[in-house]
Amino acid sequence: MRKGKILIGLLAAMIISIVAVGCSSKTSQPVAFRAEIAPGTLSVDEYAKYYPKQYDTFMKTAEMSNEGSKYGGSEEFDKLTQWPFLKEIFAGYGFAIEYNEDRGHNYTIEDVTKIKRINEKSIASCWTCKSANVAGVVEEMGDAYYGANFHDLKGKMTEGITCANCHDPQTMNLVITQPPLRDTLTRLGKDPDKLTTQELRTMVCAQCHVEYYFAGDKKIVTFPWDKGLTPTDVLEYYEEKDFSDWTHAKAGVREIKAQHPEYETFMGSTHAEAGLSCADCHMPYTMNGGEKISSHWWTSPLKHMNESCLTCHREGEEALKERVFYTQDKVADMMAKVGNVTVEALEAIAEADAKGGNQDALKEARALQRKGQFLVDWVGAENSMGFHNPQLIMETLNTSMDYAYQAINKATESITGVAAPKWDVEAPKTNTETMKVLHDKENAPKS
Amino acid sequence: MRKGKILIGLLAAMIISIVAVGCSSKTSQPVAFRAEIAPGTLSVDEYAKYYPKQYDTFMKTAEMSNEGSKYGGSEEFDKLTQWPFLKEIFAGYGFAIEYNEDRGHNYTIEDVTKIKRINEKSIASCWTCKSANVAGVVEEMGDAYYGANFHDLKGKMTEGITCANCHDPQTMNLVITQPPLRDTLTRLGKDPDKLTTQELRTMVCAQCHVEYYFAGDKKIVTFPWDKGLTPTDVLEYYEEKDFSDWTHAKAGVREIKAQHPEYETFMGSTHAEAGLSCADCHMPYTMNGGEKISSHWWTSPLKHMNESCLTCHREGEEALKERVFYTQDKVADMMAKVGNVTVEALEAIAEADAKGGNQDALKEARALQRKGQFLVDWVGAENSMGFHNPQLIMETLNTSMDYAYQAINKATESITGVAAPKWDVEAPKTNTETMKVLHDKENAPKS
Repeated sequence: MRKGKILIGLLAAMIISIVAVGCSSKTSQPVAFRAEIAPGTLSVDEYAKYYPKQYDTFMKTAEMSNEGSKYGGSEEFDKLTQWPFLKEIFAGYGFAIEYNEDRGHNYTIEDVTKIKRINEKSIASCWTCKSANVAGVVEEMGDAYYGANFHDLKGKMTEGITCANCHDPQTMNLVITQPPLRDTLTRLGKDPDKLTTQELRTMVCAQCHVEYYFAGDKKIVTFPWDKGLTPTDVLEYYEEKDFSDWTHAKAGVREIKAQHPEYETFMGSTHAEAGLSCADCHMPYTMNGGEKISSHWWTSPLKHMNESCLTCHREGEEALKERVFYTQDKVADMMAKVGNVTVEALEAIAEADAKGGNQDALKEARALQRKGQFLVDWVGAENSMGFHNPQLIMETLNTSMDYAYQAINKATESITGVAAPKWDVEAPKTNTETMKVLHDKENAPKS
Repeated sequence: MRKGKILIGLLAAMIISIVAVGCSSKTSQPVAFRAEIAPGTLSVDEYAKYYPKQYDTFMKTAEMSNEGSKYGGSEEFDKLTQWPFLKEIFAGYGFAIEYNEDRGHNYTIEDVTKIKRINEKSIASCWTCKSANVAGVVEEMGDAYYGANFHDLKGKMTEGITCANCHDPQTMNLVITQPPLRDTLTRLGKDPDKLTTQELRTMVCAQCHVEYYFAGDKKIVTFPWDKGLTPTDVLEYYEEKDFSDWTHAKAGVREIKAQHPEYETFMGSTHAEAGLSCADCHMPYTMNGGEKISSHWWTSPLKHMNESCLTCHREGEEALKERVFYTQDKVADMMAKVGNVTVEALEAIAEADAKGGNQDALKEARALQRKGQFLVDWVGAENSMGFHNPQLIMETLNTSMDYAYQAINKATESITGVAAPKWDVEAPKTNTETMKVLHDKENAPKS
């Protein structure tokens, strides 16, 4: 009788486990690991017990190396040395004090705490992408979280970025946990809980790797996507809001700081249009202890091209890397040049103002410089040296240069009274449009 | 006995034909077609007898359609209407009189004869890429051909572009026949008769689809490749030679006209680096009457994407076309903008000169405008709206804009005495270079 019960029990357990495995066939996680992590668990250590292989790769974000990468990397080197123009364009703002190439996800708490641009007046908004505790704190405090003092909330930020930022602990399904992205998607009519898996494989990254600003008196972290995702769409949004982060110390320009708009830049790129998500290149399948898992070592795919690029591209690692550098070298050269012109525009405005230049012209010069600066800053803040979308980034740099030079011309005009000539003729561009213009001309009544 | 001889004869013929087919296995041409076209044969009609299928495709170059293409095409529409800035930048030169989108190879003789920029003083150099007769005429006349009167040689140009421009009539092997490319390759230490087949599949196109100029008093058609093939390499060559095609009618700038630098632009592109030749995309294998031949319908691959792009790319025609247009739209927008600034620079110089501006500053302004104009003209003259090498073309447009605005600033300075500020700080750019600068700083002796 006892033995019979045990047998029946074993049989039942087997059936349940077979059914369970059947139900979970959509994921690669063994079902035995499921549902044992309590809801609300934040600590990586808890998840590590059940997902030790993913944890192994996650811990690689502690490695510091520039190996493979040419312009970025995970060493904490000084970006103001790398790009001297940045120190000039951020004058009067924290980014001119200290601005480092970012280290891995492992260091978020340490790095946000020690960076010199955090001062006694800094607000809690700066924690938003640094800790898995944020979602809970926002739930607790509401919008009051954002404008609270940064240091007052330090005790609540016990965790860095953990599994909980992107996963439901019970099902390990991808979820949007960060309030700013939830709010933005909701505002734009998209339900953050009804995204497809492939959408989520990009959108969990877009919880943080995006352009944002501190909106209104409450300083709520907000994504400026209402007019679209391109640099000029976002600029238009800021223009309409008349938003600025600070006023430039020398030139008196009300500037906007671009953040790290990886997601927005990637959209529209050849890889995005081919249906790829962030995870397809940055979290490739990798073998660990005989099991195929998604790598959680977020870094440049140049460090693991075999798992990332070469699953589609057949040209071989060295050839592909050369292609990446061919593009990045050009973007870097362009950015250096546009950066210098951006500084020239600031100097032209400051000098003209000091010489008592016409204020109407200077106002126009400042408006132009502000636009140009935001666009070059976008390219510099975006972590791919243009690779995420070369055409968009190169177009953005060119538009930035155009604004910068227009600002210089206006500043000069403010003291000389001599305006640069304007020749602003619209071209029909496409062959169809051209044929139409020619046709209309031919059919126009002769006078 | 008779039968025996016939049998032996048949057997021998079979063996010979098997051997012959074996030997010719590198080409797709039936060997029976070989060696029957006399050396020196130029007329397409003669070749058509032996290669009727290739001829069929060749004759499609007579079709006029913009179908598939967005910015170019084979209809003869007015490029000065399409890009109004061109009419301004070519003031004083033939291209401001008439400049059309080019039709197919079939029309070379007709089009060069009727174009309004050919006048009574035009030289024979203009025939160089229009007729298969040119190589023979140069052999006959030597360098005296180039500077001879265009009209005097009209009678000698009985053929347009024919099979003979690229093929040895006896073997149908690809050959470099055009004297300017033979001369240039020889000058640069490359034997034009020792190119690989894959090199030839590009270089036969580079006989004409290149940048060139009329060098020296003899007006010899010359390719300016001595410093490299990029737009700035070529510009540097012209600068060193102090070459100019004409002096701008309004601004007095000694300008250089860019031609159709498809080959130079393509070099370094992702498709070139992947080992592709011009023919791989523009002359794809196509089925004609059950036989697989190289298409001789030179046109945009957008018209036959299935044979061209889709042999490697798996995304499907519509998706790929969208990618091409994503890039081309950006290049077109950039070019329109840069073109307008180029005109502004010309106007700034003309106005400043009229107002008695300082001649030293104006000299600098003209030198800058000349550079900028050549670069934007390169992009406009190149037949792919940037597609042959988007990164290079976008970089080129940006460099062009930089020169144009610097020219405007110098022209303004010539009348106001106020120089625009210069901030020209070199950035270390790469992570390795940056780390070195930081390291050197750290180790510098403290003063």
